[in-house]
Amino acid sequence: MGNPVTIHSSGKQTTTYSAAELADLDRRHLLHPMQADSVSERVVIVRGKGSTVWDAEGRELIDATGGGLWHSHVGHGRRELADAAAKQIAELEYFTAYQEFSTDTTVALAARLAGMAPGDLNRVFFTSGGADGVETSIKAARLYHGRRGEPDRTWIISRNFGFHGGSYGAGTLTGFDAMQAGVGPNLPDVVKVSPPYLYRASELYGDADPTDFLIAELEETIDRIGPDRIAAMVGEPVMGGGGVLTPPEDYWPRVREVLSRHGILLVADEVITAFGRTGSWFDSETRGMDPDIVVTAKGITSGYFSFGAVLMSDAIAEVLCQDYGFFHGYTFSGHPVGSAVALANLDIIEREGLVARSQPLAARFREGLASLADHPLVGDIRVEGAAAAVEMVLDRETREPMPFPEVFALTARIRDEKGVIVRPYAHNIILSPPLVMSDDEARRTTGAIVDVLGEVSR
Amino acid sequence: MGNPVTIHSSGKQTTTYSAAELADLDRRHLLHPMQADSVSERVVIVRGKGSTVWDAEGRELIDATGGGLWHSHVGHGRRELADAAAKQIAELEYFTAYQEFSTDTTVALAARLAGMAPGDLNRVFFTSGGADGVETSIKAARLYHGRRGEPDRTWIISRNFGFHGGSYGAGTLTGFDAMQAGVGPNLPDVVKVSPPYLYRASELYGDADPTDFLIAELEETIDRIGPDRIAAMVGEPVMGGGGVLTPPEDYWPRVREVLSRHGILLVADEVITAFGRTGSWFDSETRGMDPDIVVTAKGITSGYFSFGAVLMSDAIAEVLCQDYGFFHGYTFSGHPVGSAVALANLDIIEREGLVARSQPLAARFREGLASLADHPLVGDIRVEGAAAAVEMVLDRETREPMPFPEVFALTARIRDEKGVIVRPYAHNIILSPPLVMSDDEARRTTGAIVDVLGEVSR
Repeated sequence: MGNPVTIHSSGKQTTTYSAAELADLDRRHLLHPMQADSVSERVVIVRGKGSTVWDAEGRELIDATGGGLWHSHVGHGRRELADAAAKQIAELEYFTAYQEFSTDTTVALAARLAGMAPGDLNRVFFTSGGADGVETSIKAARLYHGRRGEPDRTWIISRNFGFHGGSYGAGTLTGFDAMQAGVGPNLPDVVKVSPPYLYRASELYGDADPTDFLIAELEETIDRIGPDRIAAMVGEPVMGGGGVLTPPEDYWPRVREVLSRHGILLVADEVITAFGRTGSWFDSETRGMDPDIVVTAKGITSGYFSFGAVLMSDAIAEVLCQDYGFFHGYTFSGHPVGSAVALANLDIIEREGLVARSQPLAARFREGLASLADHPLVGDIRVEGAAAAVEMVLDRETREPMPFPEVFALTARIRDEKGVIVRPYAHNIILSPPLVMSDDEARRTTGAIVDVLGEVSR
Repeated sequence: MGNPVTIHSSGKQTTTYSAAELADLDRRHLLHPMQADSVSERVVIVRGKGSTVWDAEGRELIDATGGGLWHSHVGHGRRELADAAAKQIAELEYFTAYQEFSTDTTVALAARLAGMAPGDLNRVFFTSGGADGVETSIKAARLYHGRRGEPDRTWIISRNFGFHGGSYGAGTLTGFDAMQAGVGPNLPDVVKVSPPYLYRASELYGDADPTDFLIAELEETIDRIGPDRIAAMVGEPVMGGGGVLTPPEDYWPRVREVLSRHGILLVADEVITAFGRTGSWFDSETRGMDPDIVVTAKGITSGYFSFGAVLMSDAIAEVLCQDYGFFHGYTFSGHPVGSAVALANLDIIEREGLVARSQPLAARFREGLASLADHPLVGDIRVEGAAAAVEMVLDRETREPMPFPEVFALTARIRDEKGVIVRPYAHNIILSPPLVMSDDEARRTTGAIVDVLGEVSR
């Protein structure tokens, strides 16, 4: 069962576990997010380098998922980031950003992000991750309107198939029913509209032009709730967990126009897209979104630290700073080690031109997956930069989604038989690799999917 | 204005800012949590060692706050933790704990925590911090009851003056009105009861015995809502942000009895207390709380990484794992670097006997603050291990709380005139130092408070 694994420890109490022991300890002591009762296997990852990871059984695997969740932009196990973290810890591992305090590293990162951010998004509120950022954006939008004399603006618009995180605020915005099931009541005053989902256009929009339909639905929703009762709309520029859904070009400009006309803020959830995943530093900037608030996480540190940043306009920040200030925050808001890792990570992304790297990866994915276009269980193939979705269906005519357990089983086969990690999201097989993935690794990734799907049909 | 500060960077783009530049960049680009409009100064911390930190102006300051927020149990800037983080990053910086995946370090930490945890709390769900953990506990409690056939058990009981975090779920439980003001509607089905606050017993409880009153109020609250509609009660064993409120000895055993009688779960929010702050690994264990779920964060890494853990009983975890599993999680749940830092941090706490260190610190604080007992603006002095509160009032007879801005101004004076960082919480001056604080540093801390308050009266 492979080599024993040494558990890292600063002291002399290092303990060594075999692969079997790790799997056993995992089953007894770890509660996994989103793990169905039917999942019996355990894949314990122990090492990573570039786009490759190794598990406790000694298997070498291509990681086409960015650590499983759209991370690892600069690749796994970068020594530069180990050094940046260690240097910062030895210097100052933590001090709060509450009230009058901050740290030099956090201030430097805020200034750097303000310089990179779209438009007039000059103010930064730091978090420990994407869900925190979405929570922050909801509170910011409601408080902004309230302090400007419109306290009835409490409603938030989000979208079906949007993914915004798991905490109560973010989880209520998330457009998957499973996120709300059994844990409610959830956050009040949240309404969902349809996503731009072109593969399912006829089901969702009938014969209408997709954007025309979506704009009409948005207008009707605003009318129904009351335009003066809505604080913000929150949306991913390109929907990630929903299956890499790229909107029509006129979608965001027209949404923005509607929202502006009604005084509604637009929050871009760029947790997946910012810092290069889809080919730009901020995807919202390339789609005419012109957001008032941008939520980031993942790519800001490539996942090396639990960290995120919410960028907002001076106009909003100034209102939030009034009176007793923005009475909201996380212990770890502005963590100096996260800030130092982010600065070093942004250095690498810049130095190695990784934002531009997403386009060649997109080309490799398109080429590699093209042969699946006629597969009886493949409904759609979508690629947007270094992100791709293969939408699995039971029937290409009815477009009935493949049940999740079957998609999960396919991803397990791709891993176990071909040595490539991909992930199931609802009924999609998703790719979200490190931006440093080589052309050859990208070809091996798509080849693994094509090979396994080639053996499956109905 | 002190020495220039070099911003850490992995590359060659290192930028140097002076103290004045940092303060200016801070004002322009950083949105601080909880910073009132009236706060004009900026204190940019750049270095830390043990219980000492230095700011960008070159001032040396005693940190009697644990980085401002109850951290730094092992002290600032520990090389062992820098090494542990760097080693783990170079080996594997991140892989998800979603679904079938985990990492060796995360599994090892889960097993270690299960071995340390009170009672049968054998299962661990990892988070990025305390608020995440509280959100997790609410979802876990509601889902647990629902899957066992009691979907109407949705209500959560928390307490006024309790602090549980800033996201929507945790923030709604937090017992300070400012946390909910202007950002609602907040999470439904949350009800608050009175805290065990002995200094204000006559205001809160009249002539009744405090525990008798609180138990009667709890029973009435349960009756009013309906015992079969309540999922859980969430409470800190010793209330931290509320002002270091230690309950009467019979409080938690009697609360536990009431809750058990009605099938209501008890969640111990040990974000502040776990891992030594109040003199034990888990404070709930010493107070007869017998919790079903324990939420931890801060001390688990001494704040070196944005990280937390929710410990729960096998009985609860087994229900959460049914069907499609626990459809809840954070990208950074089970971060391997956080896990490695936690393991190394627990090694240090054990090796250096820091849990036991809280009692001598308590003795120094009691001695050092004793002379304030007759101060006209000091209502109460409370010490619980390495945590202390000086409750400020405008009048010892009426016990009217000192307004926050005045308490804030006092803490600024203590910092600027005496070189000691303490923090204002509502109308309390709070101490929550590194557990490695020396007796001499503890004496200088209390001396600074006594000196400044000695110059203030009405």
